[in-house]
Amino acid sequence: MDQTPITILNRIPQIAIVGVGLLGGSIGLALKQAGYTGRRLGVGRRASSLEQALACGCVDEVAVTSPKLWAFDQSTLVILASPIGSFEAMFREIATARASQDKPAGLIVTDAGSTKEMVCSWASHTLPEPGWFVGSHPMAGSEKQGPEHAQADLFHDRPCIITPQADTQSQALQAVEAFWQTLGMTLVRMSPQEHDQVVAAVSHLPHALAVLLVLTAAAQPGGLDVASGGFRDTTRIASGDVTIWQDIFKTNRRAVIDMIDRFTHDLTDLRQRLKAGDDAYLLDQLTRAKTVRDQWSLRQAPARPVRGPSSHEQ
Amino acid sequence: MDQTPITILNRIPQIAIVGVGLLGGSIGLALKQAGYTGRRLGVGRRASSLEQALACGCVDEVAVTSPKLWAFDQSTLVILASPIGSFEAMFREIATARASQDKPAGLIVTDAGSTKEMVCSWASHTLPEPGWFVGSHPMAGSEKQGPEHAQADLFHDRPCIITPQADTQSQALQAVEAFWQTLGMTLVRMSPQEHDQVVAAVSHLPHALAVLLVLTAAAQPGGLDVASGGFRDTTRIASGDVTIWQDIFKTNRRAVIDMIDRFTHDLTDLRQRLKAGDDAYLLDQLTRAKTVRDQWSLRQAPARPVRGPSSHEQ
Repeated sequence: MDQTPITILNRIPQIAIVGVGLLGGSIGLALKQAGYTGRRLGVGRRASSLEQALACGCVDEVAVTSPKLWAFDQSTLVILASPIGSFEAMFREIATARASQDKPAGLIVTDAGSTKEMVCSWASHTLPEPGWFVGSHPMAGSEKQGPEHAQADLFHDRPCIITPQADTQSQALQAVEAFWQTLGMTLVRMSPQEHDQVVAAVSHLPHALAVLLVLTAAAQPGGLDVASGGFRDTTRIASGDVTIWQDIFKTNRRAVIDMIDRFTHDLTDLRQRLKAGDDAYLLDQLTRAKTVRDQWSLRQAPARPVRGPSSHEQ
Repeated sequence: MDQTPITILNRIPQIAIVGVGLLGGSIGLALKQAGYTGRRLGVGRRASSLEQALACGCVDEVAVTSPKLWAFDQSTLVILASPIGSFEAMFREIATARASQDKPAGLIVTDAGSTKEMVCSWASHTLPEPGWFVGSHPMAGSEKQGPEHAQADLFHDRPCIITPQADTQSQALQAVEAFWQTLGMTLVRMSPQEHDQVVAAVSHLPHALAVLLVLTAAAQPGGLDVASGGFRDTTRIASGDVTIWQDIFKTNRRAVIDMIDRFTHDLTDLRQRLKAGDDAYLLDQLTRAKTVRDQWSLRQAPARPVRGPSSHEQ
């Protein structure tokens, strides 16, 4: 039997994308481009956003979420692509709908949230069949918002972290992994705890620093007048969606605080060495960082060409 | 009399670019593109780099630097585009050559270094005619190196800080400002001290943080495997030339340490608020940073299209 990701995915007649902003919209476009033949259903709280996603061709149909919506009578893969703060309520809605059904099977749930320990815990405690939930974190995004900025190739050649647990159904895991692979992602499996720690280092700490860098530049008279390319790139992510990032910090406090502590230690060390005129240390840090990053950069796929109306911000 | 920047510049028959790497090479290309009709002389320590700059069309002629080279018999604008650590020796070479000349006028000197207080001080103490030196800092660059990555439009619509002093000759100031304007830059005048403080906030602090972010990610097992676009952009500058950045930190210790202190204070504050669950503070910081950066971003000129062999790193 053909086991390519798209073949596995095409056995599922419906994919429900909850939250059709930039991320959800891009998922919809990418599914179409990859040859998904089932129904792409956009789900959200506001009819206006849903209309927009429909107009952009990101989904085939739309539905406002409700406790009844989730009683689908056909197999459905559900992707939560809304801010993490909405997940627990969504899990409850799904649980309510499934409880009213005779045959509860057929729903596979995953998410695209940036933290995993709390999300997986909510799923375990709320969903009637937690084995059919698989936590995911596609490491792709943009500081831009809305389905009008959706890109079919947003996920291409980017890593996606999958956090299966002991009770995860193999069929659910297979479907979710096939889903992200269909979007062109490279899979990495981790525990939810390990995920939160690693991502605190490479994504959440950088975000906190970018936010403070913007405020530092703004507090320095004339700073924003002369800020240029280095400032633009180091702070790009600070233009990201505030709700999404608030949720991330709220659901990953422990690991973020741990990373801030490590970073503050290193920064204090650098400060002391600068003060002491320890130029050998400075050279060593600069050289090590350049070497590591240059090697990392060589392993990355080329970025997609800049596009869209706000393309100068990509 | 026509006083457009290129007209003013074309009255100077020769421009000597000291250091023909990415920055110096881009200056050469930009001068040609802007219609500079005089001679573009590339000056350096190694014949091999000079040959490369000549091959790229960045300059018209080349010369290995020597204490005699600077005894030009025609008016020359000298741009130091080499690492700051080489400036003091260059000023001495120029002083030696000029001392042996009958008529010492005709040489205007500027630089493209990222710190100004020490550079201006060296110029004042070393050059025979310090009034003909004008400190400059074009806020444009790239983490790439070498004249083969030179771009004629590197400076376009970017700010250039000029740090004239009380004894600066108005003719020198006019020539240097016309030079950067010819390259498409927007001028901002500041004192050398003010420059070093402002640039510590928007460039040197971001660089120090980027270096430590790379090392933080590298120290976290699996970190570099899942690092994606946010990491790429927040750390891009850590791939910059090590010698250039070592010189920058060495010549701007005081302001960089001051900025690290302010930043550490803010980071510690954020950490405490995160720990205390002060979500209102978190939301306020995220919102303020996004607002400031979005407004800043709207004021920026669109980025140039990505180009060159390492274009995915732009």
